[in-house]
Amino acid sequence: MELALIKNSLEDKKLCDVVNNEHSMLKSKEKSYEDIDCSINGQYLISCKKEGKEIFVPFSFLEKYYEVYGKMAKHRGREQFEWSHSYSKVYKPTTPYNSSGMFMYFSNYNVEVRDRVKCVSATEGVPVSTQWEASGYYYPVQVAQYGLSHYSKNLSESLPKRKVLEDGNFLSAKWQVPKGAYIKRYYENAKSTHVLEFNSHDSFGISLRLKQGTDLVFNIDVRLLSRNSSLTLFVEDRDRSQIFPITYLCSSILIEAHNSSSSYSTNYGMGSCQNWIQLTRDLHIDLIKGHVLSGRGKKLSRAKLRVHHLLLKGYGQLDNLTLSSSNHMSMFYSSADWLVRHQDSSGGWPIGVKRKLAAGRADLDPGWYSAMGQGQAMSLLMRAFYRSGRRHYLEAALNGMKPFSKSSAEGGVRAYFMNQYPWYEEYPTIPPSFVLNGFIYSLIGLYDVISLAPQDQVGDAQLLFDQGMHSLKKLLPLFDTGSGTVYDLRHFTLGLAPNIARWDYHSTHINQLLLLSTIDSDSILTSVAERWMSYMQGKRAAHN
Amino acid sequence: MELALIKNSLEDKKLCDVVNNEHSMLKSKEKSYEDIDCSINGQYLISCKKEGKEIFVPFSFLEKYYEVYGKMAKHRGREQFEWSHSYSKVYKPTTPYNSSGMFMYFSNYNVEVRDRVKCVSATEGVPVSTQWEASGYYYPVQVAQYGLSHYSKNLSESLPKRKVLEDGNFLSAKWQVPKGAYIKRYYENAKSTHVLEFNSHDSFGISLRLKQGTDLVFNIDVRLLSRNSSLTLFVEDRDRSQIFPITYLCSSILIEAHNSSSSYSTNYGMGSCQNWIQLTRDLHIDLIKGHVLSGRGKKLSRAKLRVHHLLLKGYGQLDNLTLSSSNHMSMFYSSADWLVRHQDSSGGWPIGVKRKLAAGRADLDPGWYSAMGQGQAMSLLMRAFYRSGRRHYLEAALNGMKPFSKSSAEGGVRAYFMNQYPWYEEYPTIPPSFVLNGFIYSLIGLYDVISLAPQDQVGDAQLLFDQGMHSLKKLLPLFDTGSGTVYDLRHFTLGLAPNIARWDYHSTHINQLLLLSTIDSDSILTSVAERWMSYMQGKRAAHN
Repeated sequence: MELALIKNSLEDKKLCDVVNNEHSMLKSKEKSYEDIDCSINGQYLISCKKEGKEIFVPFSFLEKYYEVYGKMAKHRGREQFEWSHSYSKVYKPTTPYNSSGMFMYFSNYNVEVRDRVKCVSATEGVPVSTQWEASGYYYPVQVAQYGLSHYSKNLSESLPKRKVLEDGNFLSAKWQVPKGAYIKRYYENAKSTHVLEFNSHDSFGISLRLKQGTDLVFNIDVRLLSRNSSLTLFVEDRDRSQIFPITYLCSSILIEAHNSSSSYSTNYGMGSCQNWIQLTRDLHIDLIKGHVLSGRGKKLSRAKLRVHHLLLKGYGQLDNLTLSSSNHMSMFYSSADWLVRHQDSSGGWPIGVKRKLAAGRADLDPGWYSAMGQGQAMSLLMRAFYRSGRRHYLEAALNGMKPFSKSSAEGGVRAYFMNQYPWYEEYPTIPPSFVLNGFIYSLIGLYDVISLAPQDQVGDAQLLFDQGMHSLKKLLPLFDTGSGTVYDLRHFTLGLAPNIARWDYHSTHINQLLLLSTIDSDSILTSVAERWMSYMQGKRAAHN
Repeated sequence: MELALIKNSLEDKKLCDVVNNEHSMLKSKEKSYEDIDCSINGQYLISCKKEGKEIFVPFSFLEKYYEVYGKMAKHRGREQFEWSHSYSKVYKPTTPYNSSGMFMYFSNYNVEVRDRVKCVSATEGVPVSTQWEASGYYYPVQVAQYGLSHYSKNLSESLPKRKVLEDGNFLSAKWQVPKGAYIKRYYENAKSTHVLEFNSHDSFGISLRLKQGTDLVFNIDVRLLSRNSSLTLFVEDRDRSQIFPITYLCSSILIEAHNSSSSYSTNYGMGSCQNWIQLTRDLHIDLIKGHVLSGRGKKLSRAKLRVHHLLLKGYGQLDNLTLSSSNHMSMFYSSADWLVRHQDSSGGWPIGVKRKLAAGRADLDPGWYSAMGQGQAMSLLMRAFYRSGRRHYLEAALNGMKPFSKSSAEGGVRAYFMNQYPWYEEYPTIPPSFVLNGFIYSLIGLYDVISLAPQDQVGDAQLLFDQGMHSLKKLLPLFDTGSGTVYDLRHFTLGLAPNIARWDYHSTHINQLLLLSTIDSDSILTSVAERWMSYMQGKRAAHN
């Protein structure tokens, strides 16, 4: 037994020697890596690491202290930490800016999905904003950006899939017409086309089963002739096996959402309906806006939706019932037409909400114009003129320039920097605020007028543009902080702390300068843009 | 033997168990701390550490990326790492600024020890600058700051130790007079005082052994009447047991330094000598400037020096031979008198060197005035008037305001920001540069005139000061980057990158605003100063 013990002991001893060696190595390695207190500016301590002569500082401290971003990621199978000085993208233009083409990188914008968009109105055909007032209002900038993003997507995306389901003639859908209801196809002289007339009378409604895959953009020309007429699209969420009705009513309501035990429904008002209207709806958007309104949340993937069926109630006529993967030009023209309808006699698109810019100072009372709204509208209307040849778009764009020649105090949008450099104000405050991105959008709008209007009809556009570009080049350095940019010059006009532009505004500034550099060869545009780009990578202007 | 083996084995096993346990603990600890690559903005990799969910970033990277400072230090016996966002001090005033008192915190300044000071001239009694020209020139700002720092030290330091060694009368030193030389004490009518006359003839010189401890400021009233007369102080470095001669000659040389096998000597020219001059010399400064000039380096501690002996050569008279621990007021008046002597007929103190501000733009040709030089001179001259009652100081200060009313283009120092806000230029460039700290120094100089001149004789001071303060309050925000300050507005006037102020200029800006806030109650001065102070601790202005 002793021999066995001795043998075991000898084996244990060998093992123990190995362990001892490893242990000594670990101990010497561990001694070189220790915790150490780090005193931050003599004000508080954080816990750092020390290894040899190097100190290691926790990222959780750095991200708060410097507002830098970081996350773990896998790179070629290996884990690494990705440090990012900034976020948001710079788009370097590959071709010179073309006023009839895409608007900047707006083909990447999805305006209607933004949280601050309550929904797209079924009466006006454009988005409603809740950014500065919860009940909702039309914001010309938003309306224009909606149209410009769809115009740009029309150019950047491949041709949409499109199926005309009912044209009142040869393309006839298989409607299910209950007893007592009827449908009738005939040539409507007033509209110079075949239409389908329907009357559901007392029945539940005339329905159409739709199995259109994932095409969720619905179009219909419709005239509803009785008050309680409506049109409902039933959209199916395949994941949840739920069907959600979206109803378009003859009503002035904007949007309603109901949660009842049997369904979650959403209603949109189309207005008075008596006349023919063209309704183009993105059913995904219409559905999620209803979900958000009713507290169901926004998480509904477009890919999981199908249009299940359509239900007509009441008495009316319809034509061109279509389901497409997109209908960008229709949405673009909704925007253009809204702008034409809502322009006032001073050429402005008034904003109906109060806007507070800075701690009770420089407030704007409802009815103010925005040079950015004017400019974005001009960019859109000139594209509408270019595409359609319709003069009323051109006239609206030209009239849109009128507020540029009136001072903010007189209800226009023009301010002067130190009585010398004109500036077109995104927010025409007193004293001026000199917001940079809005001003540049207004310059691009003026440029679009110059480019696309008949040469003898550009009006003040060239002068306004030239003066604006001159001001821009002189004042650009005032927006440079040496490590970023300021959003506006409120620090100068209101004696406040500088209003630093967050990274997505900073990259907007860069993107705008890069666009302008393709139409103006002054080197200051590129040298500033390049410096501002370097700031996004952590570079800083030199100190003395 | 087996029993012994078994017994040993059992003990080994216990020990081994202990080691095994510790080993397991170490291994589990070690697994949690690993190296990880950190990708910086997608551009390059650095080596970081990962412990659990925390990432640790090496300080050697952070100090380059952010220009932040850090060092190891002991705090209450424990090692810690001290992270510093900035360097340099803010001095919060405890009493309102008083024009007859200390000038800001200049009691902490040591102007003459700066590397860019070649030496203190023994002819003019003021420092010579080599900042923008190696041969040396008088820079009014430097001359004034020299005087103001000594004035301030005179107020802040305790009374100096002072010993009069020879007054030609009762205080008679024990001179060693070799054969053929003589000394004679008598009443000199022309000077209304007793003097000591000497002539060393052909001898080596008349010497005086001095054992005065560490008092190194030497004063003598002297008139040297033969060309090759000189006065040499022998200063001993106790550490190296070396003796260094510093000779004051009748010569126009500024400074010479010789290294010969027997000694390292330094010579200063006192000018033509024929008339009585008062020579006040800081022997430590005079010695180290000679060391630097001859390449011996600057490292010579004041505490290690002793004045060993003095040697007179030639023929002349002397009085008030004194050794003191300091003689600030004498140095102050040297500065004041230099300013009176060198003011031109336009009231300016012209600067004799070309100054290039920015890459070949906005150069200043020799002869330019500086509002900072004018202002600092005025601060000094008004204190000289206040202390002495001598009108010529007041007149020089009042004349010093004349360039403030002339534009830079006309040879003055006044610029306008956007044709509206006057600014007094530290560097009166075309186009203007709007340096902040120099402008504020000029305002303080104007304030000193207003405060200390007879009320009916302030001339334009009040108007210039009021207009300047108005401009300052309006333009202060343009110097705010949201995380620091800019030194000037060259980015705006020259279309360049902003010229960020390094931390010692940034703290100067704050110190200046804090001073002004004690004489002007406008809240913008304190709110801006407080924000700029917070930047030194890593705070940043908010982004939108």
